[in-house]
Amino acid sequence: MSPGFAGNAPAVAAVDWGTTRMRVWLIDGGGKVLAERRGDDGLITAQQKGFSTILEGHLAAMAAPEALPVIICGMAGSRQGWLEAPYVTVPAPLSAILAGAARVPGQHRDVRIVPGLAQRRIDAPDVMRGEETQLAGAGLPAKGRQLVCMPGTHSKWVLVEDGAVAGFGTWPTGELFSVLAAHSILRHSLGEHPKPVTPSNPFFRNWCETALAEAGDVTSRLFSIRAAGLLQDLKADDAAACLSGLLIGGEIASASRRHGAGAEPVVLVASGALAALYQAALGLAGLEVRTVDADEAVRAGLIEAARENGMIARTGAAP
Amino acid sequence: MSPGFAGNAPAVAAVDWGTTRMRVWLIDGGGKVLAERRGDDGLITAQQKGFSTILEGHLAAMAAPEALPVIICGMAGSRQGWLEAPYVTVPAPLSAILAGAARVPGQHRDVRIVPGLAQRRIDAPDVMRGEETQLAGAGLPAKGRQLVCMPGTHSKWVLVEDGAVAGFGTWPTGELFSVLAAHSILRHSLGEHPKPVTPSNPFFRNWCETALAEAGDVTSRLFSIRAAGLLQDLKADDAAACLSGLLIGGEIASASRRHGAGAEPVVLVASGALAALYQAALGLAGLEVRTVDADEAVRAGLIEAARENGMIARTGAAP
Repeated sequence: MSPGFAGNAPAVAAVDWGTTRMRVWLIDGGGKVLAERRGDDGLITAQQKGFSTILEGHLAAMAAPEALPVIICGMAGSRQGWLEAPYVTVPAPLSAILAGAARVPGQHRDVRIVPGLAQRRIDAPDVMRGEETQLAGAGLPAKGRQLVCMPGTHSKWVLVEDGAVAGFGTWPTGELFSVLAAHSILRHSLGEHPKPVTPSNPFFRNWCETALAEAGDVTSRLFSIRAAGLLQDLKADDAAACLSGLLIGGEIASASRRHGAGAEPVVLVASGALAALYQAALGLAGLEVRTVDADEAVRAGLIEAARENGMIARTGAAP
Repeated sequence: MSPGFAGNAPAVAAVDWGTTRMRVWLIDGGGKVLAERRGDDGLITAQQKGFSTILEGHLAAMAAPEALPVIICGMAGSRQGWLEAPYVTVPAPLSAILAGAARVPGQHRDVRIVPGLAQRRIDAPDVMRGEETQLAGAGLPAKGRQLVCMPGTHSKWVLVEDGAVAGFGTWPTGELFSVLAAHSILRHSLGEHPKPVTPSNPFFRNWCETALAEAGDVTSRLFSIRAAGLLQDLKADDAAACLSGLLIGGEIASASRRHGAGAEPVVLVASGALAALYQAALGLAGLEVRTVDADEAVRAGLIEAARENGMIARTGAAP
């Protein structure tokens, strides 16, 4: 037993390793979280300092045993990452995706990276890395059709049928917001530091409804934000709410149309302020929502991946 | 008579003064162009060096007479320009717009700036500066309905009815292209210096058709360009063609829907490579096109503005 873990020894370390940040959890044999650590040494930092160095540093700081196996998801498995974990082509069952984790060679411990997903349709090529693990941890029912919305820099909408990923699409909503706010003419409208947008802002709601009514056509309304500043004295914080409402509403209208939303609740995998904005916007679209916390989902997905790869037992004993 | 103008003395100087560049023409009493000069001292430079200094420098280099009146259109008339020429609210007749030029005080010559247009609809606020002059010079018939497409950084689509601007909209297509190419994840797909897009590129045509079929919903396809690079070995120059086709197709689908295109040919006010791309895209949309050269249109519009302001005679004698 390792010192400091009050009775339960860690059985696996689970790592969510994204582009700009990483999180590490120590998990016991029953799937219980023993410790958590966060760092801003994501892919970009790791490319310079070395993935192994950064991982071992975090594990040492958590007093993890030398031989503890590690399961990783996210951009660490990309071509620019530690080891390319080749994409699994959809349609594919979630359990098979997790079980296909790629082993990093030359490590003194068992380190594996969950593969991303590729949609190889010629008319709709798409990829994801990291969200497949969130999806596996979202507690989706084994049977039936689920439409899952995972908002962020590159929002993913995923159609899951009977526990398998049937198809997905990407809407770069978060990236559009930040790129337009920083580099387009809208920077004059939004100012340098607009306050975070809240779902109760009437501008957020109005512009979201406009985008929903226009079936995802957002380009026709972008310049209106600038014009509203010139003609209607729109304030910077409200301009940010307009842009947020327009882009989120546009995403929901477009994704709903593409994936046929409405038959069942949309499963929203999100946390904090972003979850609140999408809950409001999905409500304005008349869609029922079931929210799953994104942080919990990725941790649960990594634990499930550890099980699928035999790192911890399938039915762990309760502590 | 001023030296160097082979028989005809200039009656007015016409200036198209944009954000980053300016053009000056000397015009005789009959509306004939005697000389042209181009500079990269647009609004941004002029804010530092002074508008009068820059204008007088160009006029001196063209040996223009001391008392020659000047008519100006474009961003020089904005709030950040030389003198704010207040917006004319649409609907408004083109002739009345031109006649409303604002006189710059404190100059030794008569200098006037054509006003921009404001659409003060609460649900679709919009503004333009400079395009109103192109529009007046586009040779539109005095009667009937015309839908005019003026592509660029901020493309304008204008509905003209019986010689009056009935309404308009802005699609920031050129700006979206450059901002996404430089600052979004698509910079990895397009590379640093993609070749100019040509209308014969099949990727331009395919992605344009996709956007046309999806009614202006372009955000759902942006990330596909990145994915096509990862999964289908899409080359950088072709990725630029995809993005161009997607954005131009999206603009046309959206604007056609908003303004009801199809009853008569679209009047395309554009020059060079941009004209060729829009001609191809409008053709793919099944729309008939009549192209008017944008450079000629702005010059003709300024001459018409000089006439409306009594700077040259309405029916000038032929040289």
